[in-house]
Amino acid sequence: MSIDQLSVATIRTLAVDMVNAGNSGHPGAPLGLAPLAHVVFSKMKFNPKNPQWINRDRFVLSNGHACALLYSMLYLYGYDYTLDDVKSFRSLNSKTPGHPERGHCPGVEVTTGPLGQGICNAVGLAIAQKQFAATYNKPDFTLSDNYTYCFLGDGCLMEGVSGEASSLAGHLKLNNLIAFWDDNKISIDGSTEVAFTEDVVGRYKAYGWNILEVEDGNTDLEAMAKAIEEAKKSTDAPTLVRVKTTIGYGSLAAGSHSVHGAPLKADDIKQLKSQFGFDPEKFFNVPQEVLDYYQSKVAESVKIENKWNETFEAYKKQYPELGSELERRLNGELPQGWEKALPSFTPSDKAVATRKLSEGVLDALYPVLPELVGGSADLTPSNLTKATGSVDFQPPSTKLGDYTGRYIRYGVREHGMGAIMNGIDAFGGNFKAYGGTFLNFVSYAVGAVRLSALSQHPVIWVATHDSIGLGEDGPTHQPVETVAHLRAIPNLSVWRPADGNEVSAAYKSAIESTSTPHVLALSRQNLPQLEGSSIEKASKGGYALVEVENPDLIIAATGSEVELAVNSAKALGESGKKVGVVSIPDFFTFEKQSDEYKLSVLPNGVPILSVEVLSPFGWSAYSHEQFGLSRFGASGKATDVYKYLNFTVDGVVERANKTIDFYKGKEVISPLNRAF
Amino acid sequence: MSIDQLSVATIRTLAVDMVNAGNSGHPGAPLGLAPLAHVVFSKMKFNPKNPQWINRDRFVLSNGHACALLYSMLYLYGYDYTLDDVKSFRSLNSKTPGHPERGHCPGVEVTTGPLGQGICNAVGLAIAQKQFAATYNKPDFTLSDNYTYCFLGDGCLMEGVSGEASSLAGHLKLNNLIAFWDDNKISIDGSTEVAFTEDVVGRYKAYGWNILEVEDGNTDLEAMAKAIEEAKKSTDAPTLVRVKTTIGYGSLAAGSHSVHGAPLKADDIKQLKSQFGFDPEKFFNVPQEVLDYYQSKVAESVKIENKWNETFEAYKKQYPELGSELERRLNGELPQGWEKALPSFTPSDKAVATRKLSEGVLDALYPVLPELVGGSADLTPSNLTKATGSVDFQPPSTKLGDYTGRYIRYGVREHGMGAIMNGIDAFGGNFKAYGGTFLNFVSYAVGAVRLSALSQHPVIWVATHDSIGLGEDGPTHQPVETVAHLRAIPNLSVWRPADGNEVSAAYKSAIESTSTPHVLALSRQNLPQLEGSSIEKASKGGYALVEVENPDLIIAATGSEVELAVNSAKALGESGKKVGVVSIPDFFTFEKQSDEYKLSVLPNGVPILSVEVLSPFGWSAYSHEQFGLSRFGASGKATDVYKYLNFTVDGVVERANKTIDFYKGKEVISPLNRAF
Repeated sequence: MSIDQLSVATIRTLAVDMVNAGNSGHPGAPLGLAPLAHVVFSKMKFNPKNPQWINRDRFVLSNGHACALLYSMLYLYGYDYTLDDVKSFRSLNSKTPGHPERGHCPGVEVTTGPLGQGICNAVGLAIAQKQFAATYNKPDFTLSDNYTYCFLGDGCLMEGVSGEASSLAGHLKLNNLIAFWDDNKISIDGSTEVAFTEDVVGRYKAYGWNILEVEDGNTDLEAMAKAIEEAKKSTDAPTLVRVKTTIGYGSLAAGSHSVHGAPLKADDIKQLKSQFGFDPEKFFNVPQEVLDYYQSKVAESVKIENKWNETFEAYKKQYPELGSELERRLNGELPQGWEKALPSFTPSDKAVATRKLSEGVLDALYPVLPELVGGSADLTPSNLTKATGSVDFQPPSTKLGDYTGRYIRYGVREHGMGAIMNGIDAFGGNFKAYGGTFLNFVSYAVGAVRLSALSQHPVIWVATHDSIGLGEDGPTHQPVETVAHLRAIPNLSVWRPADGNEVSAAYKSAIESTSTPHVLALSRQNLPQLEGSSIEKASKGGYALVEVENPDLIIAATGSEVELAVNSAKALGESGKKVGVVSIPDFFTFEKQSDEYKLSVLPNGVPILSVEVLSPFGWSAYSHEQFGLSRFGASGKATDVYKYLNFTVDGVVERANKTIDFYKGKEVISPLNRAF
Repeated sequence: MSIDQLSVATIRTLAVDMVNAGNSGHPGAPLGLAPLAHVVFSKMKFNPKNPQWINRDRFVLSNGHACALLYSMLYLYGYDYTLDDVKSFRSLNSKTPGHPERGHCPGVEVTTGPLGQGICNAVGLAIAQKQFAATYNKPDFTLSDNYTYCFLGDGCLMEGVSGEASSLAGHLKLNNLIAFWDDNKISIDGSTEVAFTEDVVGRYKAYGWNILEVEDGNTDLEAMAKAIEEAKKSTDAPTLVRVKTTIGYGSLAAGSHSVHGAPLKADDIKQLKSQFGFDPEKFFNVPQEVLDYYQSKVAESVKIENKWNETFEAYKKQYPELGSELERRLNGELPQGWEKALPSFTPSDKAVATRKLSEGVLDALYPVLPELVGGSADLTPSNLTKATGSVDFQPPSTKLGDYTGRYIRYGVREHGMGAIMNGIDAFGGNFKAYGGTFLNFVSYAVGAVRLSALSQHPVIWVATHDSIGLGEDGPTHQPVETVAHLRAIPNLSVWRPADGNEVSAAYKSAIESTSTPHVLALSRQNLPQLEGSSIEKASKGGYALVEVENPDLIIAATGSEVELAVNSAKALGESGKKVGVVSIPDFFTFEKQSDEYKLSVLPNGVPILSVEVLSPFGWSAYSHEQFGLSRFGASGKATDVYKYLNFTVDGVVERANKTIDFYKGKEVISPLNRAF
């Protein structure tokens, strides 16, 4: 048996043993893809002891359920896994969970499993590489030239999100991306003949991709190696390599969907091991030759890495400014004093829509933060996401921009944009990725948003037109439930700023974040600069905007309703009621403050009424009574719709008085006071 | 000027005047598409006075922002719009809102605007037609042969959801679907050259579509008419007609994105009207000849409809059983006594996963309800959505099923499935469409789910693997925020049944619903049949499962945690605490009960602790204290994960005791008692 064959057999049996030990998982794809993984990893440059090296090749397993394959590779190549880790596959708190989790599993670049996401992350990784290389490479210094490799299955190809990102990747001519389609003709419902008979190759050609084919992905290692060499010759297109494999290759159930998602039977495991020349009675049998062979591959990579380190040292001498900028970025640091660029406001400043204020922040930050890279899902003039002077990220041949560009035209592809942003963040180099769309259409992308939160990608959604204030476009475009939904996602910061200072605070939080994605819900309509707001106060997530002594009521509000709350408090004051106003631009940040601070904002003994033109769902965490919207909106002028739905001073005053009356004489416990 | 030219000019000027009157909207696409709309409508059969006629041709405006075009057509053809309605474009509560809304706007088949949805709805309409025709047509009786026409723009084509449905439509060989791509090279960010340079025709060929081209969509009416005739000749493929148009044709800003989404300037409107032979000073100028011409077209349709009525009468005589079934369906009625098929359970029945119980219900309902048509997004063996004996909905040529089939293999296309279900429902004929996926991946489809709710499509999501109980697949697949999100959507019924009776109650609610979509969140793991549950009680959405006198505490729970609540109440009872248990399988249904009933379930004076292994967000509407999950889950055996996250009897008892202690001596107001 050649070392290649031995390696492939080792990967296959190891993956099967993992699934068997976990008594759960997916042996089919690892058995089919082991040869390809063996070949691809052997062509990649990376150092398991320094997995953050910026010029490593990236590997993305878009069909994340095949993770037994990935963990096998990472273990065999010497990433930080013990054999016990491998044996603990899919058990609680192991390093080898049911799907690959970034941050949790050494060497895993992005979290995959939800189908279609990984290939989009790979597109993001490739975009980041192009932008990074164009920015920092010099004729005599190549600091960035890595490839992104991606495996994907039929499931990934069926998901629309992969089509969105693949279309964009073709447009952007990302020749640094090499994707391998595991063409095994099987999905969970059986043969792909039942639902997926399109011509995938034709579709990817239509996207502008370079297409290669490997007829025998089960054994023909040479063809796979050749495909990679061919793919690297592509000058203006990403490559899709169609690799025909047999799912569960070697198993008695090979080629059927029964081998997809359940452990092999004991007898099957035995015959499979015998067939591959392994002792049928041994489990987790890893020949030392294989470990040695892979270490020899790593040694080659480490040489390249060492050379890169030398190059970078020389670079810093020749290009001290760029060099120190790059060093800063690689250290994950922001430029000293960057936050001074954030605009602040006083009440005498004019009323401006928060989306417009967001544009002002982006304008201010663009020259200060070279890592700020953003775009919009075809709503640039509405989201106001394009910083003055920014260049489009485009293939130079289009003459529409170049690869140093930091403004990405995502097209009408919200979900793809979200997943691509995760990939840009995963590249490293401190990229701060933002993307614009209407708040309502962040919902199209929540598959990616929840992965941002789970995988701690601090990306930024510029989510404009955040309520019925959107007006005439009507209920199809007016978010109602969206903010409630986003607030319920763990590790997601959801800002709904009320004025310029709060917008700046939201961006401060977003840019400084290293692990929490941010959604900034911004108004279409103008909002005044509030008396009592400041970047500092807003940075606590919630604060007393209007303070009164011994209040009869506190009105808590966000965004466009803070103005309404202030005006209502004034009106109530005229009728002798003492009413304070609290602005809570971000629940997530507010939640992190001390109990003492929070209780100073929402104290015991005072009834609290929340006002927000969105679903009141979840607000009872901070208020006793909720004035919200438990219906869809309506098409009409924003002011008409607000009035129609009672979001007026009169509407708030009425509910405020009812709240005061209801709680009169009752013991009022702050909603922050909990039993546990 | 020919009547055709006059008609087109009328549509164009009418649409421009609407946008002008509303001072908001999209004139560009209506100007470009007016000729096509004129031709397509003239080829369609429909009766504005009987818009529900089952064999009408359907029209879907996937680029819903072009609604001034659609409203113009519907007004000119004599649907229930006055000229005042037309003049009230985009004003509050008018019949002509910012995007077409089904139910609200006469003649509008589906709500569109969120890009990509309409074309998927059209695929659903075409699937429904095929299934309906295959079921009821006889060699000598053609009761169903209508076409579905759809306009879509570049935005719709960029959205992944349209790719999902289009791929499936090609696979299903839906030759009754004719879609027109408004190829105008403009989107909001400017030229499509900035982001959308793929070969759309090549992509649709790859999907297996029939492709036709109209070179001059601005004026060549004959070519458009010919394309429709050609499309109708397709025997085994849906048709995409590429129609090259100029956005804003006739405007001074024609061909640019500035004409897309804002009213034309006054001077521009004048010159445009002059150019089209209209008085530049007149607004809403509708020549009587045009109205007469369109009425002559309607008269042709009415003849066809009358003939259809005769056919149906004869059909009922020749096929009395099918005829009365069809009549029942057209009347929107369910078969008498259908609900007797719903299984009920007693505590002695064995513990079963609610997804498995759901399978039992589908098995039971399949023979009773011929209108029940469902499928899964490639998770059939996990969702258990395929009723015993059901046939696949497939082109007969595949030999995998036929068009009478009621089981749809959606592939891994959750968002497409959701939008297709909306289309199936929109067809009429009482279709009850259901679709299966993991609850976590309903999130991929929320763009469609919120439109189900807004447009009152009572579709059914069979959403299995509803919590950390999913186990080993881990946090990428374990929903946490999903149910909170869905509960925050207006008009959405979100069931999380605890046992067999509650599963039957959930289906009863879903099948009987005529306007509310349902999501059934179902467990992967086995759950016992509960003492105290019944279909009748569960049908109230919430009920006292374990009643005790003068309780110290009530535990409110749903789904898999009801068992935990019961066991915890028992354990607390052993330590002398009197604890009741309330099951609230569906907030939406519970909310509709009388205040008296609701307060009998969650009375004043008793602290309430909610227990649900999901985000606690929103639960304070029904409980004082919440035990939920404010973090992502973990990969591991379900029992291990439950234990790790403290969802055990000990974990609940601890929190229950803290809740009892906290509220001791305090005035406890039911959360249902509100100030307003």
